[in-house]
Amino acid sequence: MASKGLRKILVLHGPNLNALGKRNKSVYGSKTLSEVNGLVQQRARELGMETVIHQSNSEGDLVDLIQKEAGGASAIVINPGALTHYGLSLRDALEDAGLPVIEVHLSNIYAREPWRAHSVVAPIARGQISGLGWRGYIAAVEYLSTET
Amino acid sequence: MASKGLRKILVLHGPNLNALGKRNKSVYGSKTLSEVNGLVQQRARELGMETVIHQSNSEGDLVDLIQKEAGGASAIVINPGALTHYGLSLRDALEDAGLPVIEVHLSNIYAREPWRAHSVVAPIARGQISGLGWRGYIAAVEYLSTET
Amino acid sequence: MASKGLRKILVLHGPNLNALGKRNKSVYGSKTLSEVNGLVQQRARELGMETVIHQSNSEGDLVDLIQKEAGGASAIVINPGALTHYGLSLRDALEDAGLPVIEVHLSNIYAREPWRAHSVVAPIARGQISGLGWRGYIAAVEYLSTET
Amino acid sequence: MASKGLRKILVLHGPNLNALGKRNKSVYGSKTLSEVNGLVQQRARELGMETVIHQSNSEGDLVDLIQKEAGGASAIVINPGALTHYGLSLRDALEDAGLPVIEVHLSNIYAREPWRAHSVVAPIARGQISGLGWRGYIAAVEYLSTET
Amino acid sequence: MASKGLRKILVLHGPNLNALGKRNKSVYGSKTLSEVNGLVQQRARELGMETVIHQSNSEGDLVDLIQKEAGGASAIVINPGALTHYGLSLRDALEDAGLPVIEVHLSNIYAREPWRAHSVVAPIARGQISGLGWRGYIAAVEYLSTET
Amino acid sequence: MASKGLRKILVLHGPNLNALGKRNKSVYGSKTLSEVNGLVQQRARELGMETVIHQSNSEGDLVDLIQKEAGGASAIVINPGALTHYGLSLRDALEDAGLPVIEVHLSNIYAREPWRAHSVVAPIARGQISGLGWRGYIAAVEYLSTET
Amino acid sequence: MASKGLRKILVLHGPNLNALGKRNKSVYGSKTLSEVNGLVQQRARELGMETVIHQSNSEGDLVDLIQKEAGGASAIVINPGALTHYGLSLRDALEDAGLPVIEVHLSNIYAREPWRAHSVVAPIARGQISGLGWRGYIAAVEYLSTET
Amino acid sequence: MASKGLRKILVLHGPNLNALGKRNKSVYGSKTLSEVNGLVQQRARELGMETVIHQSNSEGDLVDLIQKEAGGASAIVINPGALTHYGLSLRDALEDAGLPVIEVHLSNIYAREPWRAHSVVAPIARGQISGLGWRGYIAAVEYLSTET
Amino acid sequence: MASKGLRKILVLHGPNLNALGKRNKSVYGSKTLSEVNGLVQQRARELGMETVIHQSNSEGDLVDLIQKEAGGASAIVINPGALTHYGLSLRDALEDAGLPVIEVHLSNIYAREPWRAHSVVAPIARGQISGLGWRGYIAAVEYLSTET
Amino acid sequence: MASKGLRKILVLHGPNLNALGKRNKSVYGSKTLSEVNGLVQQRARELGMETVIHQSNSEGDLVDLIQKEAGGASAIVINPGALTHYGLSLRDALEDAGLPVIEVHLSNIYAREPWRAHSVVAPIARGQISGLGWRGYIAAVEYLSTET
Amino acid sequence: MASKGLRKILVLHGPNLNALGKRNKSVYGSKTLSEVNGLVQQRARELGMETVIHQSNSEGDLVDLIQKEAGGASAIVINPGALTHYGLSLRDALEDAGLPVIEVHLSNIYAREPWRAHSVVAPIARGQISGLGWRGYIAAVEYLSTET
Amino acid sequence: MASKGLRKILVLHGPNLNALGKRNKSVYGSKTLSEVNGLVQQRARELGMETVIHQSNSEGDLVDLIQKEAGGASAIVINPGALTHYGLSLRDALEDAGLPVIEVHLSNIYAREPWRAHSVVAPIARGQISGLGWRGYIAAVEYLSTET
Repeated sequence: MASKGLRKILVLHGPNLNALGKRNKSVYGSKTLSEVNGLVQQRARELGMETVIHQSNSEGDLVDLIQKEAGGASAIVINPGALTHYGLSLRDALEDAGLPVIEVHLSNIYAREPWRAHSVVAPIARGQISGLGWRGYIAAVEYLSTET
Repeated sequence: MASKGLRKILVLHGPNLNALGKRNKSVYGSKTLSEVNGLVQQRARELGMETVIHQSNSEGDLVDLIQKEAGGASAIVINPGALTHYGLSLRDALEDAGLPVIEVHLSNIYAREPWRAHSVVAPIARGQISGLGWRGYIAAVEYLSTET
Repeated sequence: MASKGLRKILVLHGPNLNALGKRNKSVYGSKTLSEVNGLVQQRARELGMETVIHQSNSEGDLVDLIQKEAGGASAIVINPGALTHYGLSLRDALEDAGLPVIEVHLSNIYAREPWRAHSVVAPIARGQISGLGWRGYIAAVEYLSTET
Repeated sequence: MASKGLRKILVLHGPNLNALGKRNKSVYGSKTLSEVNGLVQQRARELGMETVIHQSNSEGDLVDLIQKEAGGASAIVINPGALTHYGLSLRDALEDAGLPVIEVHLSNIYAREPWRAHSVVAPIARGQISGLGWRGYIAAVEYLSTET
Repeated sequence: MASKGLRKILVLHGPNLNALGKRNKSVYGSKTLSEVNGLVQQRARELGMETVIHQSNSEGDLVDLIQKEAGGASAIVINPGALTHYGLSLRDALEDAGLPVIEVHLSNIYAREPWRAHSVVAPIARGQISGLGWRGYIAAVEYLSTET
Repeated sequence: MASKGLRKILVLHGPNLNALGKRNKSVYGSKTLSEVNGLVQQRARELGMETVIHQSNSEGDLVDLIQKEAGGASAIVINPGALTHYGLSLRDALEDAGLPVIEVHLSNIYAREPWRAHSVVAPIARGQISGLGWRGYIAAVEYLSTET
Repeated sequence: MASKGLRKILVLHGPNLNALGKRNKSVYGSKTLSEVNGLVQQRARELGMETVIHQSNSEGDLVDLIQKEAGGASAIVINPGALTHYGLSLRDALEDAGLPVIEVHLSNIYAREPWRAHSVVAPIARGQISGLGWRGYIAAVEYLSTET
Repeated sequence: MASKGLRKILVLHGPNLNALGKRNKSVYGSKTLSEVNGLVQQRARELGMETVIHQSNSEGDLVDLIQKEAGGASAIVINPGALTHYGLSLRDALEDAGLPVIEVHLSNIYAREPWRAHSVVAPIARGQISGLGWRGYIAAVEYLSTET
Repeated sequence: MASKGLRKILVLHGPNLNALGKRNKSVYGSKTLSEVNGLVQQRARELGMETVIHQSNSEGDLVDLIQKEAGGASAIVINPGALTHYGLSLRDALEDAGLPVIEVHLSNIYAREPWRAHSVVAPIARGQISGLGWRGYIAAVEYLSTET
Repeated sequence: MASKGLRKILVLHGPNLNALGKRNKSVYGSKTLSEVNGLVQQRARELGMETVIHQSNSEGDLVDLIQKEAGGASAIVINPGALTHYGLSLRDALEDAGLPVIEVHLSNIYAREPWRAHSVVAPIARGQISGLGWRGYIAAVEYLSTET
Repeated sequence: MASKGLRKILVLHGPNLNALGKRNKSVYGSKTLSEVNGLVQQRARELGMETVIHQSNSEGDLVDLIQKEAGGASAIVINPGALTHYGLSLRDALEDAGLPVIEVHLSNIYAREPWRAHSVVAPIARGQISGLGWRGYIAAVEYLSTET
Repeated sequence: MASKGLRKILVLHGPNLNALGKRNKSVYGSKTLSEVNGLVQQRARELGMETVIHQSNSEGDLVDLIQKEAGGASAIVINPGALTHYGLSLRDALEDAGLPVIEVHLSNIYAREPWRAHSVVAPIARGQISGLGWRGYIAAVEYLSTET
């Protein structure tokens, strides 16, 4: 799990997060995914870390990505979108990766529909950040920069 | 949501609906998907509407399709197949689209296995038609033609 | 159950549907029951069918009506109102009638209070149409005109 | 509650039982309600008891009947039909009557749909007979003839 | 909903409440319904209000009464009897009436059988009074006299 | 399953029924099991039937008995005692026997502890008689005498 | 429990009720706790009764208060605030006090979040008044003045 | 469904099974998927059967594969990975295929997290083998070789 | 637990399995228990193992057998029959034995009544084979022959 | 139930308790059942009481024992083993005995699998001691010695 | 955790236990808390142990006490009163203390209201004694005196 | 809610958090509460904010603190300890405060006992941070510094 050179963080966005900036802004904020990714990348660099960032609407693709990229990474930051609530294949891939996982949600999933309050990923995550908007990704990256 | 020229309706078929005409005919009817699509297209044209029709066995593809096609459409008709019961990513994509959604089921999902009686899509749909066979699609198209 | 001459459809409206046009219009629409019935009758006639239409606020009366009228009818269209959720006597009467039943709801019962999302009638219905407003009755009549 | 002269038994049939002989015969048997009533009346007479017999499809009517007739009766035999499962007003009327109640079901309600296996009346009944067909009424009458 | 002249309160009693004074007195008290109604009427008059009072054992009748009488009334006081727990048609009629509703129960419904502790009417009521015996009606009338 | 000569009925009593006459008499009555068996035997004889009667406190023994005796019998009357609620091996043995089964309970199992209201045997029984005391056995025997 | 001289009523307010007049006024009304207490005290005096009134944000304090004050009181009026839903120690203290308890809620707890619809106190209360605002306390006091 | 020439078995592996040999070895064993497939293929050949073997992390792909390959196969062996617990589209595809299905799990899914103990596929499978490691596939192939 | 000489496998059959060949053949197959045992014994011998085989309809006997025989055995194959679903004493005995346990079911317990889909034994078993008929026992024996 | 001469206590051990000293010692302790019984017997004697001690793996036997021995005893100490969780026949036998029952568990049943935390015997017991190892039996005997 | 000199036991009583001797005596016994404490203290002394005893109606106080006193104690005996059922802060404090905890209940909590049958403390306790009245404390002290 | 001069953040720690550094370090970390508070204070100062920090083991105290301090603060950071799961009074106080609330948990509450996975506070919080150890407080403070 150690990485020579810069530590690399795998950042994953699940279904519908590519629509950020367009989908319900009062819930998800007005920044586009590209803007959020830029901020994440910049903060990671300031902290001496690289980022590999992907988004997919397909659970299968996310599993493929984790299998392919986890080997070279030291941690995973993931916003699984609605897969949070039923993506058990994604959960298994994350657990198999053997890396610290920080689960991020833009909105507070505990203040919305009841089914959003249950994450199948959380039990294998190191931590979860919910409701801080795009700053949740930043907080995740900062936390991971202190992990040794 | 307004569309210049002809109104366009996005018609989506979820997993296993490409097997229509082969899969359990007493449940799903004997017409193939191609035949059903032909009837839908024809009725839409009679009512002065265009149709864009897709089928996929993959939830991720359906989300991609909605993100790509919803912008130019004024409504969505969808038979989510078994995704009806767990496809929360699909549900979010449909909600994000901001269009009237009519959910169609060939069979009466309330007269089969208990798990089929719960739709995760229905709470964000305008309406649902269940058990009318292929005519359910026609009814959906006709309803949408009266929406102003 | 066959009928000589015109096919006859029994159209039944359950409790509080006589208040249509007055009760919550954003949910139920602004047409009165009489106007809806007129449209249903007219569409049935165009399709070569007769209609017998009744409304009652009493489950017992609805059961009486089904027992009395089903013999001469070839199908039933019913909006059971709130009886949808607990009217098991009504359900039994409908099943005993041995006719195709189309259950109609003006509003989308799956997008309201949780208790409205369960129909005790649906398991014995041929199909269900929910959320299309008064056009749901028309769709039901059209569907039944194709039944042979 | 005592009655001078002959003991009188109030026999009540709930919704849809007037359709006996027509509704699903493999479940409910082929005798009409009138034939069943005749057999009940005859057996009661043999045992020195009078019967007062009513059927109604309306819960309100059944409550009215119990309030009116229970005073002169010494016991109640009731087949509540589908009200068995939700007729709490009927239940209260039966309890208020203060008489022994025998609940009868033609079919075995424990071998059908799950919701039929719960009776809201049973907790205030003296006993319940289920699945013996019309002979269940006879058994109820015979049991009551031994009550002193 | 405004009423010229005296304010009018619609007072409704559900199933089995006509048996007050006879049914279980340790639970429901020893006054007859007629006596209770007299006290309610008198207190309303003292407070400058008229009352229209009905009792029925039939949910359908209660719905009919609400539809007929609510127009001229400024509030409703209702003891739905056992319909409290399943009378969804009654609930819809009360909500459609658009008036303040006070739900009254003679006994404390939270200290009896578990099923009595759930009211389908309460979510659309202004308030609920339970366990104060006939004085609950008086408290309801007094509360409504202060509503402006 | 047919039997030449007299029809034979297998009567089975489950755990603790050998304590009849001693255990809670207000619930189970004051007759001993031997007295009840005598009455059952006598009534069966009057109706031209033989009885084979056994009691056991062990589920395994009851299964053994059914396997051994069902071959020569034309019906089974069983009071499974507390096995009613969990004796799935007993249930399977009864179903395997392929005979009409009448389930008898001395007390009304629906008016006692909640767990007594669920019978694992009932779904494979022909009928169930509950709360008629020892007369329930008599009613069962009489019913079976009319079976052809 | 009897009290010489004036009857004394213990009035208790639970957590956050000291914030009345500031907290959500559309739910709880605009009067301060001090104003409400003044009205309660005045009405009690008119009816010839004394009041002892306390508020605490701590369940332990409320239990202490009940143990200390109940001896000299003849009844308790309590608005347990959110303790209504989990304050089992408070419930036991109220039951131990052996006095009539009237539970008061300013808002209609049955028309808010689902968890507010369950009171652990209600099963040991004499009655409950919910949704009448501060007038609920007055109604409680008036009811208790008629208790003998 | 019959196949001329050799019988062909479709062997499918769901999400994360391509990571065998790397993922938690104490749970899933130390053989790679390729090694397992080799053993399965060899055993099938010994028994005179062909195998077509696929793995995918995507439910949509698995549905596509079943639709494409089932026509030429006489049975399916599938380890659905985590899709076992929510892959209803996969379930429908398997049922539509109309072939005997053997569901295989490397680990004992009944001795792990509670959610792993429920398979949505099992109700339409012929059989299920759980906890025998890679030998479960061999047992499945051997069973199918005896099917005629 | 090691055994010198031949490895010995304890094979146990629970309630009603002695009726194999007679009980529902479409579910359980047409071989008698004796025939099945012969096949198991033969296959074990081919693989160099001994078998000790017992059947009992009594849970207590099965516990006794496990306590007596487990000491000399190296593994257990058990079909607990209906005890699968409630035989917690059997479960404890199996766990106490400290041997690998393979649970076998002739039918697919996940495709029958819901209560059959839960095994209290499975959480302490090494593996479970369901729905392969008598071949399930053979597969169990073969698996155990590879255990070292 | 009184006994002349020494008071006699019936001590019963359920399934698998004869394996004490061999089964999981970290859970159940290292003493054999014989050693535990010796200590119980000795303590009872010191307190002037006799003991009758039995163990059985069969629920039926335990019921037989209670029926046979309870007459001469003044109290029962029972560790029902796994029957604690489903042995309703045992529960009925214990209740029928009409004696004080102390339920003993060696391990703390509330700190193990969830199903162990529910005892069907506890509601009819005088008391329960859980987690004190063999000293729980001693505590039970000492408690009973003070009962008069 | 070791203690020089005498071993010290922390004895804690939760809400309403200071009312012992006054509150429902048929449930809780007639001794006052002071009398119970005297007996506990005396028995502890006989066994060579010291006791520190506190009662509080406030969960916060109990947590404070545990944090303050646990350091010098070698075990805790606690009757959490109604906090047993929801006092999760108390539970955490007890677990943090790292001492053996014996949970004591005067009454049999499994024979009262259903909500009393669940203890949030029990899963972290060494053992639980329920229903032995004040002798339960003595048994706890005696058990702890044998702990080494 | 505005504050002149520096923005002030109210930081609250619930029950048992004063034991940080002593309680289970592998779960909660090795820093004492005092050390954590120092880090929080320092980071707040760097960001130009003041902090007011309190810990209490009593829910009532926490409610008092919120009522007293919220007026002068612009946001609340709270780790409610075990009150997270049942502290509804705390929840109401937080909601009444009308400030942004960030809920912090040192450990990942979704990877522990099931009851820890439900927060009654979360639905009224702006966001929640779980499992980041003491850095969760820092992330909360940093997030709040960007709120305008």
